Amino acid sequence: MDEVMEMPPGRKPDIDVRRAYEKKIAPLSLTERKDELLKQYEEYKKQGLKLDMSRGKPGSDQLDLSMDLFKYAKNLVSEDGIDCRNYGAMDGIIEAKRLFASLFNLSVDQIIVGGNSSLNLMYDLISKALLLGLNGFKQPWGKQGKLKFLCPSPGYDRHFAITEQFGFDLITIPMTSEGPDMDMVEELVSKDPSVKGMWSIPMYSNPTGITLSDRVVRRLAAMKTAADDFIIMWDNAYQFHHLYETQDTLLDLIEECRRAGHPHRAYMFSSTSKITFPGAGIAVVASSPENIAYLKKQIAIQTIGFDKINQMLHVRFLKDPENLKEHMKKQAGFLRPKFETVFNILEKNLGGKNIAYWHKPRGGYFISFNVMKGCARRVVELAKEAGVTLTPAGATFPYGNDPDDTNIRLAPSYPPIDELEKAIEILCVCVEIAALERLQ
Amino acid sequence: MDEVMEMPPGRKPDIDVRRAYEKKIAPLSLTERKDELLKQYEEYKKQGLKLDMSRGKPGSDQLDLSMDLFKYAKNLVSEDGIDCRNYGAMDGIIEAKRLFASLFNLSVDQIIVGGNSSLNLMYDLISKALLLGLNGFKQPWGKQGKLKFLCPSPGYDRHFAITEQFGFDLITIPMTSEGPDMDMVEELVSKDPSVKGMWSIPMYSNPTGITLSDRVVRRLAAMKTAADDFIIMWDNAYQFHHLYETQDTLLDLIEECRRAGHPHRAYMFSSTSKITFPGAGIAVVASSPENIAYLKKQIAIQTIGFDKINQMLHVRFLKDPENLKEHMKKQAGFLRPKFETVFNILEKNLGGKNIAYWHKPRGGYFISFNVMKGCARRVVELAKEAGVTLTPAGATFPYGNDPDDTNIRLAPSYPPIDELEKAIEILCVCVEIAALERLQ
Repeated sequence: MDEVMEMPPGRKPDIDVRRAYEKKIAPLSLTERKDELLKQYEEYKKQGLKLDMSRGKPGSDQLDLSMDLFKYAKNLVSEDGIDCRNYGAMDGIIEAKRLFASLFNLSVDQIIVGGNSSLNLMYDLISKALLLGLNGFKQPWGKQGKLKFLCPSPGYDRHFAITEQFGFDLITIPMTSEGPDMDMVEELVSKDPSVKGMWSIPMYSNPTGITLSDRVVRRLAAMKTAADDFIIMWDNAYQFHHLYETQDTLLDLIEECRRAGHPHRAYMFSSTSKITFPGAGIAVVASSPENIAYLKKQIAIQTIGFDKINQMLHVRFLKDPENLKEHMKKQAGFLRPKFETVFNILEKNLGGKNIAYWHKPRGGYFISFNVMKGCARRVVELAKEAGVTLTPAGATFPYGNDPDDTNIRLAPSYPPIDELEKAIEILCVCVEIAALERLQ
Repeated sequence: MDEVMEMPPGRKPDIDVRRAYEKKIAPLSLTERKDELLKQYEEYKKQGLKLDMSRGKPGSDQLDLSMDLFKYAKNLVSEDGIDCRNYGAMDGIIEAKRLFASLFNLSVDQIIVGGNSSLNLMYDLISKALLLGLNGFKQPWGKQGKLKFLCPSPGYDRHFAITEQFGFDLITIPMTSEGPDMDMVEELVSKDPSVKGMWSIPMYSNPTGITLSDRVVRRLAAMKTAADDFIIMWDNAYQFHHLYETQDTLLDLIEECRRAGHPHRAYMFSSTSKITFPGAGIAVVASSPENIAYLKKQIAIQTIGFDKINQMLHVRFLKDPENLKEHMKKQAGFLRPKFETVFNILEKNLGGKNIAYWHKPRGGYFISFNVMKGCARRVVELAKEAGVTLTPAGATFPYGNDPDDTNIRLAPSYPPIDELEKAIEILCVCVEIAALERLQ
């Protein structure tokens, strides 16, 4: 197999790391440096700050960008005569299906436009796979005993929580710079029919920020699985969420699966949560026409339909892919300076010290930040005491258990820049204190 | 047990019915009357009509009543500082919880304000009961083998479809004029631990239009059940949907269950689907504080939250119970003439003929119409051929199977009055033709 680069890892607090660090802080000794940091830390604590970097929430200025959406709330009839204010059109209005189809290069029969939450659509799909079975299943998963789900990590805690709640064994798959470790994935899925699925955020992943390489996508599409009801949960949340002109690109898994002879393997999810309003946008599930036709029949029992008024408002506001991309540039205008603030302060305070590593993503909402092994929980704890709330250490791993205790997810989108600066300055102090506690 | 009146039933096409009918149509003979009707029927057919009375959808004029809702789409921050445009407040904004609490005499900790569909909340609850178990369950239903659900009928096809899809045996419970036949309910639930729940639309029921009497509600609350995880699905969809000043009243099942020592038995559902916009309103689930606390923890895995913008728009538009009741009087202003059109035409054409019976509800969206036994399918078929779409015969019974083939659900809300008049005139002709086919 081709060699793939590991994601920047946490380092063991070994003698080499200590020597390199000592060189960097010279002429101060470890003890002197620690005293200096503790003094700074105590001063931060006195300020009684309340800064929150835990959640990937857009800032209010980003939300203001979409307030014009409501001005379209009149004549709410779709082009095929459906009154969006009344029952009907269970799988979404045609205008909304067409918008998503053009955004993702799909046909409208591959799409259901749902409600306000793609996470809810994912939960529903797993729930239906367990209770009813999906298209092509010989038997619902719920009748097949103890099952396993693959969880590329660091990953999204809410994905893992769904499969944990439903009783799957969660298997941690390490992330490389190209995506999940495909050697391990192929090994597991080829041998074990109880491995039923895999989570993936393929583009600007939460939290690593990386985008799956073409060859990883092709391997996911082509691999042989022992389970004939194996599915990939493709949470394409950030496909349009670029920070820069230079953008990552992602291969279309649904199309690659079709070409590889596994047309029903991939279920793609997306939403406008970080395009318009988190929790008040519209969500979508897409797959092969056969999978979607089957799913529509099941969903017809669950609901008379999703909120078509909100679908129509979104279509009228977002208009078309070109306009949506312009809108996302405005979003990036708010986000980019926040990401760069974080990069700059991290570099200034921790660069070259060998005690923390991070990736600079070209899009998405997160920075994956790796501190010295065994230090992540301590860093989050120290930050908390100084008034900075971070995502809990371990949250990015199944069962909240980061085996190296090294990964912290930074979410720079929500705080205003001045608060963000302060929060990252404090974070850097905490990282260094935690490292010194281990190095000394 | 107290004597309860049966709902107006279909009649067998026996000799007494025939004699009574002959008297009514005299001096015409059965054959002459049939020829007359068939002539009328052929004339209707020639008109190429397309009239739809199948769905309980509000008319466009009713929907126009709520269009002011969108003018409140600014400053979308709740009183406790939550930006409705962003993530958070999984169980709904406090303003929405308070509105529903005051409407249903509940405390805010008994309520989750959900998305756009109460049916979806019901589906979710049954799904969770199967996969995870609800508060107080020793084991999820899904691990307990073959289960049964009680279905008072005529009832709501979409209720029955949920429990059918999930593999329950559906048990038909006849409806009396006070609600489900409680002798039969008590008999079944007391002896059989596989009877896990019961559907109910307690007020202005779909389709019977009746409201459960106080003693029926008290018996539901008090009855002993063999299953300690028995629940009542209380779909309180029409509590505020009165047609007249004289209104039905409904006892509070959640409170009665608490008093009777079964505080966790009842789950109540409601929505604004027929208050504001069907499919674009807000829905609610309510129960004991313990049930709701348990459910909140489960839902926190399923979604980050429901659409809070729509919740805020609804609260600002509906304001308070008094204002909502005034709003519903305006809705009734559109609905009442439609119901009375149906009653008048039915009475004019079929009154005293002994071949059809109907109930005049004081609220809700439906008229339960009973034709001669064995004739309902034929009537729906005849109407269809003449361009009038009715709810399929049998739809109001589990598995779509009305054992007497007698019940038809009439939904007068959607068509304009002139169309409605024509549709009911045609219906009456079809009813009489079908009866004559049996009587001759």
